[in-house]
Amino acid sequence: MSHSRLPHEPDPEPTESLEDLVKDHRLLAAQQWLGTHQPHVIADALARMNAVDAGVAFRLLDKDRALAAFEELEPVNQQQILEGLRDRAFLDLVENMEPDDRVRMLNEAPAKVAKRVLAGLSPNERRMTSALLGYPEGSVGRYMTPEVVALPQDLTVEQALRTVRAKGADAETVYTLPVVDSGRRLTGIVELRELVLNPPDMMMSELVVTEPTSAYATASAERAARLMRETNDLNLPVVDSEDRLVGLFTIDDAVEVIEAADSEDVARQAGAAPWAGHYMAASVWQLARYRALWLMLLLVAATLTIGVTQAFEATLEQVAQLALFIPMLIGAGGNAGAQAATACVRALAVGEVRGSDLLKVIWRECRVGLVLGSLLAALGLLVGSLFVSLKIAVVVGITLVLICGWAATIGGTMPLLAKRLRIDPAVVSAPMVTTLVDATGLIIYFLTAKAVLGV
Amino acid sequence: MSHSRLPHEPDPEPTESLEDLVKDHRLLAAQQWLGTHQPHVIADALARMNAVDAGVAFRLLDKDRALAAFEELEPVNQQQILEGLRDRAFLDLVENMEPDDRVRMLNEAPAKVAKRVLAGLSPNERRMTSALLGYPEGSVGRYMTPEVVALPQDLTVEQALRTVRAKGADAETVYTLPVVDSGRRLTGIVELRELVLNPPDMMMSELVVTEPTSAYATASAERAARLMRETNDLNLPVVDSEDRLVGLFTIDDAVEVIEAADSEDVARQAGAAPWAGHYMAASVWQLARYRALWLMLLLVAATLTIGVTQAFEATLEQVAQLALFIPMLIGAGGNAGAQAATACVRALAVGEVRGSDLLKVIWRECRVGLVLGSLLAALGLLVGSLFVSLKIAVVVGITLVLICGWAATIGGTMPLLAKRLRIDPAVVSAPMVTTLVDATGLIIYFLTAKAVLGV
Repeated sequence: MSHSRLPHEPDPEPTESLEDLVKDHRLLAAQQWLGTHQPHVIADALARMNAVDAGVAFRLLDKDRALAAFEELEPVNQQQILEGLRDRAFLDLVENMEPDDRVRMLNEAPAKVAKRVLAGLSPNERRMTSALLGYPEGSVGRYMTPEVVALPQDLTVEQALRTVRAKGADAETVYTLPVVDSGRRLTGIVELRELVLNPPDMMMSELVVTEPTSAYATASAERAARLMRETNDLNLPVVDSEDRLVGLFTIDDAVEVIEAADSEDVARQAGAAPWAGHYMAASVWQLARYRALWLMLLLVAATLTIGVTQAFEATLEQVAQLALFIPMLIGAGGNAGAQAATACVRALAVGEVRGSDLLKVIWRECRVGLVLGSLLAALGLLVGSLFVSLKIAVVVGITLVLICGWAATIGGTMPLLAKRLRIDPAVVSAPMVTTLVDATGLIIYFLTAKAVLGV
Repeated sequence: MSHSRLPHEPDPEPTESLEDLVKDHRLLAAQQWLGTHQPHVIADALARMNAVDAGVAFRLLDKDRALAAFEELEPVNQQQILEGLRDRAFLDLVENMEPDDRVRMLNEAPAKVAKRVLAGLSPNERRMTSALLGYPEGSVGRYMTPEVVALPQDLTVEQALRTVRAKGADAETVYTLPVVDSGRRLTGIVELRELVLNPPDMMMSELVVTEPTSAYATASAERAARLMRETNDLNLPVVDSEDRLVGLFTIDDAVEVIEAADSEDVARQAGAAPWAGHYMAASVWQLARYRALWLMLLLVAATLTIGVTQAFEATLEQVAQLALFIPMLIGAGGNAGAQAATACVRALAVGEVRGSDLLKVIWRECRVGLVLGSLLAALGLLVGSLFVSLKIAVVVGITLVLICGWAATIGGTMPLLAKRLRIDPAVVSAPMVTTLVDATGLIIYFLTAKAVLGV
């Protein structure tokens, strides 16, 4: 296996890519490439390739590396590969995956594939997989590992270590050991570290953290992951509604959940459906499909701006120079609104702001917007009087103050309002706020113009 | 300590907040509140409060909980608290922090505070802190823990465990044990799990992963963190330029680095400087300051649109109805450009796209933009002919195809170009692309109008 070390400097570009080797039918060289790269590098290379080439490359892998690389792939890519495998290889691969990884794959698989997978598994693996599949999508239950070493209470350190040794081989992690009572109810956790560092005859109970942080299997995986980030725990015990231990939510899954949630938020804030796959492997049509809906919605929403402008057509015809500043003004309003919306979506996501803070946030953002608007107004006065008359510059300046105050207020209100109405705050995305602010901003502009210029 | 369990449903709102208790001078109740909440909940409550109240609340904490809560705070909030402490309490607190947490705090502290901290530390802690401070900002060295149990080669499992027991008490983690040669050069790693699960007389060398993934101390912490996410490692060994082990980069720090980097990217893409503090604790002036610079830059950039509109004033006066569609058209172009820019910034950040993919990405985004533009054009034709004449609707439709193709191309190009020029791709943010596309989009619009309408 090649030595992988993060270098001082940005990556050296790879000399010859797996993609090129497969495309050129240089399969021996491809096999060599696969033999000298780490699983995550292989997974990355496979994800960039089209389904057929990826399938060819995958079959050149030896068995262990194939599994390791397969587990690193996103579910979308896993299915492309599975489709190309014969039944035996298919089942071997799936049987050997970790239960939680397998569930993540099945989650996004067509029903046909899911059925084929479940039918082919050994009874034990099937039991664990269907248990995990029983939890709602996006819940901790879907991501947890059910293979946990749980310790009974009242052991010595030595007895506890012996239990770990006896049962630990199959567990995904043994670093956090849940402690349970006779009814398998969670009563505490003990870290393997404590067992190793303390004398064998010490009672384990002295090392147990009673009332540890935990989560119900039906709780949101994203919230559990963010909780782990705050508490710095490596693993979170997961319990059912009767407080019985059912699994552990591990930090590697938590990191993935956080990353996926963050990039979903970013995609939504840019006005696109979240796209789970690899950028380079997506076809032009796939990329377009994930962006089209929002763009079309926003375009329809933007007809508001046509209506508003039309309503003030008389004003615009009398002072044609007002048209010059329309793009700049709605741009400024949109940016101020987007900043506020983004700040609030983030603050909600990481828990800095709660739904009950609505009024406080509105009051804050309104003032922030007015401060920013006043700064921009000074600039706007300058720009306006350079291009046209001082009178119009005054209109532009006043409009900037009002638009920014209004835009920031709307931008701060929308995400919290969405949260209260149980809509995903990221969906009330920056471009949606922008489009709304565009239309209302034009009203503010034309009304100000009428008031100041008397037209 | 209260039982913290992530519930099925969104949070129950806290009945009485620490903030209110302190504001009402009900210090006994506040002390009780502090005694029954977990450190991360306390840290969250402190972060929401102003500096004075937070200082009062902090002094009500007992010593152990004070340290635990303090380590959970962001550096910004830590400094507010430190400023309120007397020298003895100040030094006690800082002395007992983990070296990497302390460095993160010093990183963002004014020079005066940093000096005071370093001067007051015990020689051993000072040595470790200044070593960490010697690495460049944002590097792995700044985040790693230097307190590592390194194992010599050629031990049995039992001897290795004995070494862990002897030296592990001070280490931040003992779950990943780097293996070093006589010159302290990294030769492999062994997981504590393997030592615990295998027979005492086995040779450790059978369990060692040789050539593990590792990072130079000067490498980018963000890249190291993303690498860990891909490899699912709990800890990454860190070496100096001569391959000697200097520390471990732990997963909890990696998660924080990823979150910070992602929220910086989001802030920049919304046109704001990254704001490290807690949303509710920031004053209106602080929030405004972090957003003002970008808004003003974008406003200045937007004067381009005034210039362009002015250049086509004759066209606009002849066909005044063209003005109606300006907000809608530049909105559509801006959104298409922002989507492309956001997708590419993300793909670059997570490593799906490399600098060398520039031409491929341009070709992809150009086609995606044209596909999206054609969809919008169909809608635009409809909207245009509803509001005005078919002729202007045709102008709007053609403009939408061209603007979207152009905007997506620009949006996809900018981040990759920035990467090649070693500028942070997130800085070439969506609003910057939007503003550029606004101006060029107007040129496209007016030229199309001239061509089709012959004005």
